[in-house]
Amino acid sequence: MSRRGFLAGVAGGALAGGRTLFALQSAAPAVDATDLRARIEALSLFGRPPAGTFASGVTRVAYSDADLAGRSYVLELMRAAGVTPRIDPAGNIFAKRPGTDASLRPILFGSHIDSVPAGGNFDGDLGVLASIGVLDAFERRGVRTRHPLEVVLWAAEEGVAFNRGLSGSRIVAGDIAPDHMEQMWNGMRRADAIRKIGGDPDRIMDARRDKGAWHAYLELHIEQGGTLERSNTAVGVVQGIVAIARYEAKIIGFANHSGTTPMADRQDAMIAAAHLTLAVREAVTRKPGRQVGTVGKIEVSPNAANVVPGAATLIIELRDLSTATLDSIAEEIRGRAAVIAAETRTTIQMTPASANPPAFADTAVQDVVERAAQSLNLAAARMPSGAGHDAQMMARLAPMGMIFVPSIGGISHSPKELTRWEDCAHGANVLLQSVLALDRT
Amino acid sequence: MSRRGFLAGVAGGALAGGRTLFALQSAAPAVDATDLRARIEALSLFGRPPAGTFASGVTRVAYSDADLAGRSYVLELMRAAGVTPRIDPAGNIFAKRPGTDASLRPILFGSHIDSVPAGGNFDGDLGVLASIGVLDAFERRGVRTRHPLEVVLWAAEEGVAFNRGLSGSRIVAGDIAPDHMEQMWNGMRRADAIRKIGGDPDRIMDARRDKGAWHAYLELHIEQGGTLERSNTAVGVVQGIVAIARYEAKIIGFANHSGTTPMADRQDAMIAAAHLTLAVREAVTRKPGRQVGTVGKIEVSPNAANVVPGAATLIIELRDLSTATLDSIAEEIRGRAAVIAAETRTTIQMTPASANPPAFADTAVQDVVERAAQSLNLAAARMPSGAGHDAQMMARLAPMGMIFVPSIGGISHSPKELTRWEDCAHGANVLLQSVLALDRT
Repeated sequence: MSRRGFLAGVAGGALAGGRTLFALQSAAPAVDATDLRARIEALSLFGRPPAGTFASGVTRVAYSDADLAGRSYVLELMRAAGVTPRIDPAGNIFAKRPGTDASLRPILFGSHIDSVPAGGNFDGDLGVLASIGVLDAFERRGVRTRHPLEVVLWAAEEGVAFNRGLSGSRIVAGDIAPDHMEQMWNGMRRADAIRKIGGDPDRIMDARRDKGAWHAYLELHIEQGGTLERSNTAVGVVQGIVAIARYEAKIIGFANHSGTTPMADRQDAMIAAAHLTLAVREAVTRKPGRQVGTVGKIEVSPNAANVVPGAATLIIELRDLSTATLDSIAEEIRGRAAVIAAETRTTIQMTPASANPPAFADTAVQDVVERAAQSLNLAAARMPSGAGHDAQMMARLAPMGMIFVPSIGGISHSPKELTRWEDCAHGANVLLQSVLALDRT
Repeated sequence: MSRRGFLAGVAGGALAGGRTLFALQSAAPAVDATDLRARIEALSLFGRPPAGTFASGVTRVAYSDADLAGRSYVLELMRAAGVTPRIDPAGNIFAKRPGTDASLRPILFGSHIDSVPAGGNFDGDLGVLASIGVLDAFERRGVRTRHPLEVVLWAAEEGVAFNRGLSGSRIVAGDIAPDHMEQMWNGMRRADAIRKIGGDPDRIMDARRDKGAWHAYLELHIEQGGTLERSNTAVGVVQGIVAIARYEAKIIGFANHSGTTPMADRQDAMIAAAHLTLAVREAVTRKPGRQVGTVGKIEVSPNAANVVPGAATLIIELRDLSTATLDSIAEEIRGRAAVIAAETRTTIQMTPASANPPAFADTAVQDVVERAAQSLNLAAARMPSGAGHDAQMMARLAPMGMIFVPSIGGISHSPKELTRWEDCAHGANVLLQSVLALDRT
């Protein structure tokens, strides 16, 4: 990606490849890359480990003091961008910039700033700060959109706090009941947690918004995987957020003395678990596609060096945009499990543990994002999101689109999470151009 | 095995196969099968779960009140057999019956009565009660041996109590230092535990005995495996107690998001662990022989459904009489681990965790046991013991031999542990005949 391409912020213009763009630079709005970097670095201070550096990452768990401080910083930035933030009953922060046509619905864009424990400085943060950067750019260039523009900071995206992933965006999408406010976590009531960040738990049901509340929803986010970096692609056009199917595989063998039980007599649950773990990988990788499957968790009983394992429980997780693909992989694993059980003289029960449906990005919004990237001379590729995002909830209420930028080494949820500053700015400008393009629809 | 064969307790006599034996029955000493059964059933009361039956097994952990009560019962049986028990400083119970030649060293035989939690009614108990049955039989028939006979109940064989397997037999074999008495377990000092069962921790070093203290050591025990039952063999002539080599295999991959990390980019420690687990089984079963190998324990990090496992630690345990065999299997596993590490892009470090040498049974004693079985028309087969036993320690001090009887289904360390009463009696009489045969040497 050339520096020239990045600066060529032409609103939706179709550009001939070799054309000189200098004439357009001063006229076109663009997110200020220096500001964006400075703000990501500044936000990293809230939740930084003691005596740490930017490379130490952040622990900015939702509802913590660090979260509260980070939110105050974002509120300041919003005000500086000329918009007045308001906090909804769920603790989400919205800031609206009027458009020229008050009858049009707002275009919403944003992300979150809460983190996992020992997380990185880009997950969520980039999307929020780039969104404010878009408002700044419009303000600087005097750009007025037809639609109102609304920037959002979603509360509690990471699902670390409390025992249900009741993010601010989920509440807005309607998955909420008053008694959820009574849940406890770390000695804190959810109602008090929401009140701490400026929400109003007594009016929590008012946080819900109707389908059609927004013209569209956009979210810029780091990929959190290594696909873009490896293929040297600046922009991922997200097709949707994958479905997740989890199965519990319970293997029952027979626990016996590791010294006195001949190999031929064993009903070793660990051997069956090993075969099944490999079968999951084989079933997932047999066909081309981006589907993934993981055995991330195992419990073995009695888990002692001198006992042939009598039982093992695995969690099998499958992810893909297509639930049909997931079902067919699960069916194949089930078939393999039956063979493995017979061969190892164990029983294997595979039961569904949870199933999340996919959340598709709107195809027209995907086209808008792709053209925005092309207009900036940035290579773009369509791809699924393997991780969950606030956009997943917003897909229920509005045409949704997501913009991914490369994660170095595909590392995320880690202090080592990193995205090149150049790529951050690229993503921010794809967001800006996409907002402008959507404003024309 | 015919009932006739069992009753034909001819002391060391070589019998023609078809010969009628009725004439010999009244003259030959034999362990009373009814008594033996009644005593095994009676001993099972000490440590039986509340409202349980014989089939509920026992929890008679060393130094517990149940252990103390069981030992009192055995002390009574010893006195009834005409011998005076004494408790050594380690809490082992010895009871000596004089021989006709006071210059000869005693023949020692016995076992233990402590159990694992939720253990069975035969592990150890059979050997102790059969040994007393041998004395009873001699007393009843007026048999006087040349050598003194000494029955032993070893303390704390199962290694459940305290953090080191400091059994009574290990102390007698010399693996003891005064400071071991200070170890704590379950709020109890080892010195107090030993004192509770009648030992004398202040004189613990006096429990040690010299090599040559006994003419021979014999132990009757259940097999705890399924080899004898499956081959319909009444008696196992133990060749020795296997060596145990344990290795810790530490696999380091890279923990990453299970949704955003494509299959091709993963460094999945669980996948490597699965391959390694299967490689252990393959390496162990590739060559004929009785060697066994187990991956009984695994720890995975972070062990979460939505994270590609970043690290896994396995314990690989190998057992065989031959340390050369163990070394060659370990070498093969090491080679496979290197290939697996390369293929899964992980690192695998395999380090020795512990190594117990084998303890061989004396070949002359093995011959004695085998001939004793043959004299009773019982099928016998030589075999290693995959489990540890007090005999392992005694092999350091005296020519050692062990007699195995079949475990139904190969089950042990379980309330389901079971040996047919007929087989118990067979074993007891092989013990009796072996004692008589050793007395002639």
